[in-house]
Amino acid sequence: MSSSSTVDLSHHLSNEAKLRLPNPMKEIWRLARRKPNMVSLANGDPHSSLYPIKGLQFEVASLEEEDPVAAWRTAGPSAPSQILKSSRDDPCILPVQTAFQYTTGAGLVEAQQALTELANFYHNPPDHVVTLTLGNGDAVTKCFRLLGNPGDHFLADEFTFSALANAAVPQGIRWVPLKIDEGGLIPEELERTMADWNEERGPRPHVLYTVPCGQNPPGSTLTVERRKKIYELAQRFDLVIIEDDPYYFLQYTSPASSDGAEARALSPSFVSIDVDGRVLRVDSFSKIIAPGMRLGWITSSAFFHAHLVTYTDSATQHPHAFGQIFITELLGPAGWSVKGFDKWVRSLRNEYQRRRDLFLSLFEKEVGPTGLARAGTPEAGMFVWARINVERHPRFRRDTGAAGARTNCRQLMVELFEKCLDGGLVVMPASVFALTLDPKYNDAENPIEDRFNYFRLTFAGTEEAMREGLAILGLSLREFFEQK
Amino acid sequence: MSSSSTVDLSHHLSNEAKLRLPNPMKEIWRLARRKPNMVSLANGDPHSSLYPIKGLQFEVASLEEEDPVAAWRTAGPSAPSQILKSSRDDPCILPVQTAFQYTTGAGLVEAQQALTELANFYHNPPDHVVTLTLGNGDAVTKCFRLLGNPGDHFLADEFTFSALANAAVPQGIRWVPLKIDEGGLIPEELERTMADWNEERGPRPHVLYTVPCGQNPPGSTLTVERRKKIYELAQRFDLVIIEDDPYYFLQYTSPASSDGAEARALSPSFVSIDVDGRVLRVDSFSKIIAPGMRLGWITSSAFFHAHLVTYTDSATQHPHAFGQIFITELLGPAGWSVKGFDKWVRSLRNEYQRRRDLFLSLFEKEVGPTGLARAGTPEAGMFVWARINVERHPRFRRDTGAAGARTNCRQLMVELFEKCLDGGLVVMPASVFALTLDPKYNDAENPIEDRFNYFRLTFAGTEEAMREGLAILGLSLREFFEQK
Repeated sequence: MSSSSTVDLSHHLSNEAKLRLPNPMKEIWRLARRKPNMVSLANGDPHSSLYPIKGLQFEVASLEEEDPVAAWRTAGPSAPSQILKSSRDDPCILPVQTAFQYTTGAGLVEAQQALTELANFYHNPPDHVVTLTLGNGDAVTKCFRLLGNPGDHFLADEFTFSALANAAVPQGIRWVPLKIDEGGLIPEELERTMADWNEERGPRPHVLYTVPCGQNPPGSTLTVERRKKIYELAQRFDLVIIEDDPYYFLQYTSPASSDGAEARALSPSFVSIDVDGRVLRVDSFSKIIAPGMRLGWITSSAFFHAHLVTYTDSATQHPHAFGQIFITELLGPAGWSVKGFDKWVRSLRNEYQRRRDLFLSLFEKEVGPTGLARAGTPEAGMFVWARINVERHPRFRRDTGAAGARTNCRQLMVELFEKCLDGGLVVMPASVFALTLDPKYNDAENPIEDRFNYFRLTFAGTEEAMREGLAILGLSLREFFEQK
Repeated sequence: MSSSSTVDLSHHLSNEAKLRLPNPMKEIWRLARRKPNMVSLANGDPHSSLYPIKGLQFEVASLEEEDPVAAWRTAGPSAPSQILKSSRDDPCILPVQTAFQYTTGAGLVEAQQALTELANFYHNPPDHVVTLTLGNGDAVTKCFRLLGNPGDHFLADEFTFSALANAAVPQGIRWVPLKIDEGGLIPEELERTMADWNEERGPRPHVLYTVPCGQNPPGSTLTVERRKKIYELAQRFDLVIIEDDPYYFLQYTSPASSDGAEARALSPSFVSIDVDGRVLRVDSFSKIIAPGMRLGWITSSAFFHAHLVTYTDSATQHPHAFGQIFITELLGPAGWSVKGFDKWVRSLRNEYQRRRDLFLSLFEKEVGPTGLARAGTPEAGMFVWARINVERHPRFRRDTGAAGARTNCRQLMVELFEKCLDGGLVVMPASVFALTLDPKYNDAENPIEDRFNYFRLTFAGTEEAMREGLAILGLSLREFFEQK
């Protein structure tokens, strides 16, 4: 985190962000710093002697074993563990009386330091700083508020995690879908969309929202070459990139090379090559620790950081003390440290890679012989994007003329989904991940509804669920495709 | 929480709230419930066997003593305590593998139940439900988003906690200040403002934001009579009330009657008399447990609850597992239970009442003899609103003609504030709490700047801070008022 970004990106701020006022009490506190030992009758903070909390303990996995995740998962109650502590009366990094006070939206200095160390270890971003968040949803939607005015256009993969993309819609942000292939976002599609933009449609997109690793749902991961091209296009067309990367730590080798091999090197993130300060990178502990953590961080330029902190002060306020203590002690010398954290996530990566490979071999066995579906091979994340070969169905039709679509793909997929449900299997159909967009701007030659022939399937569940689920899928496909 | 509210209040929703889409995956999960024992390949949730967390422990105050707060505050490390636990392997209300999963914005059922029991114990609101929040700031700003369109007018006390009120401004909400007296919001001022509203100014206010107990900064508390009148006016003028009540549990008897007396009965809240479902009540643990909790709750009609949950799903997502475990176990049979919680807050109330009375007696000794300032006697909260008798200053002038103001009150108060800082004391001047408003609608006869002659002083700090601080204040006043 050295050197200095010089590009002025203030025109990307939303009007809300520009209008937001800092807390006027901050100015009073600033003035009060002119003398040491100032007596304060200013703040209405409950005195820490009145917090009814003496200490917290978290019992977490120990990292003694070579493969700590496998040991932890299989050993049950006797699994080796270690204790993280915060106390009112005993030494620790974040004692109760410090951690449980009001802080600013930036969070506690100790927690920021811990996450800065982690961000540097993996990304070493040029001249960026860390802002604590309340998890991924909080982080991404704060970025939307920071950058989006009503009527603005944002770019994203045409299939994306809809709960998050939809969150921007009531704010007046309009999504512009980018076609994808198995490698995810196609730089040439991005270039074409920006270069051919018709201003009559409204302002040209100025934000790209992307999940570079294990994109949800298609499971795609951007190559280094695509990342570089996309960043260059962001510079050329003045785009801000929201890099939402919850699956960063779950990147896999190809199935052929994975047997016993070392975990693969992690792809360089957008933030690691961000010389302009135009990347807001969102990190999450939900997939590698637990979803209930509700603590994560954004890595961005100091400029965007300052606006994120002001917004946080005016909305959620600072993150909870519990999670800040947990993560500070976990990454600290009495916990795992960053090196131990890396050991855990490497081991976790191997665990999920085994699950992915098991899933793919079960798919090959149960579904492969039907010839009716094909599984992609995700290089990251938790999802297999399975293409259903819908054009082989006896009732498949082209040029149906139904609302925009040129085939009856959508209808057949609804029926197949129902067939699976009747068989006792629930999957996520592609339709729920299609970006909400103005039908006027759907691609008339190649409308998105004709690409609804995918199911998102996860390998994050149990082995039993994979075995049973894929058997049901194979059977449902066979029966459904025999229908006249 | 019986009977049923019948008033349709859907016209109060903001356009954002109306446009917000529920997560489309919810529909899939709903369909999947048609059969038991469905196999799922749908959700990308990390399996709980991979959470590296085995258990959590919170060591909290025990309630054995008659006056548990006094015992806890004075006993130091040997203070009697009890342990709250959540475990992966041992029985508890919220085991790790349940608490740390993804949940909806409504939070975990067990935590909702615990807070519902608490809300019923104190308010027994007619036909209302509880929504978990991430603390007071999160709750109030979510209410602003739920109800406010750009250009809308909201009502509030003219001096109010500015960090929160300012949060609504970038969203386009315009504040309409209501004049207050020592008893807080004056019902007749509310009636006059609504009845005399000139539509040329824009849409008539439809939301009242109010802090009924220990209003910050003036420390005022609404009488039962005022509450009833205000609720009737809300019905007559179709107002939604945001009842922000962080100091509810810190209500005091008058100084004369407080010596050894039982803690006073808590005033009936707006939500307890809300037959229409037009009150959104915001509760916080920050003042009675600790600010770092970042967990609270809103009590509202089921209608507003549903919109709050959808918004939470589209923004912060559900509250952190840590706080949900803490509060569920604390209020549960293995913790304090609601009865024990009530014992703690009664004891805490006595503690703050002692501090208030000490503060007032010190004020009487150090400042009273000057005749230059007068302390209000707050019946709740953490603040004394001290009136500075600025008109006694040799340089006090009327009809100065300076920007709106009719006196030089504002300027003299800036000087007095600086004088206190030079003496080593920091206080909060009234100016930082003045609502941001369009100068065009300032009261020309009685502009707010001429009422800036107040300091907000807290009695929440240490006895030493009160002694030293009030001595400095007395001295600063004397010296400042001798200036020619």
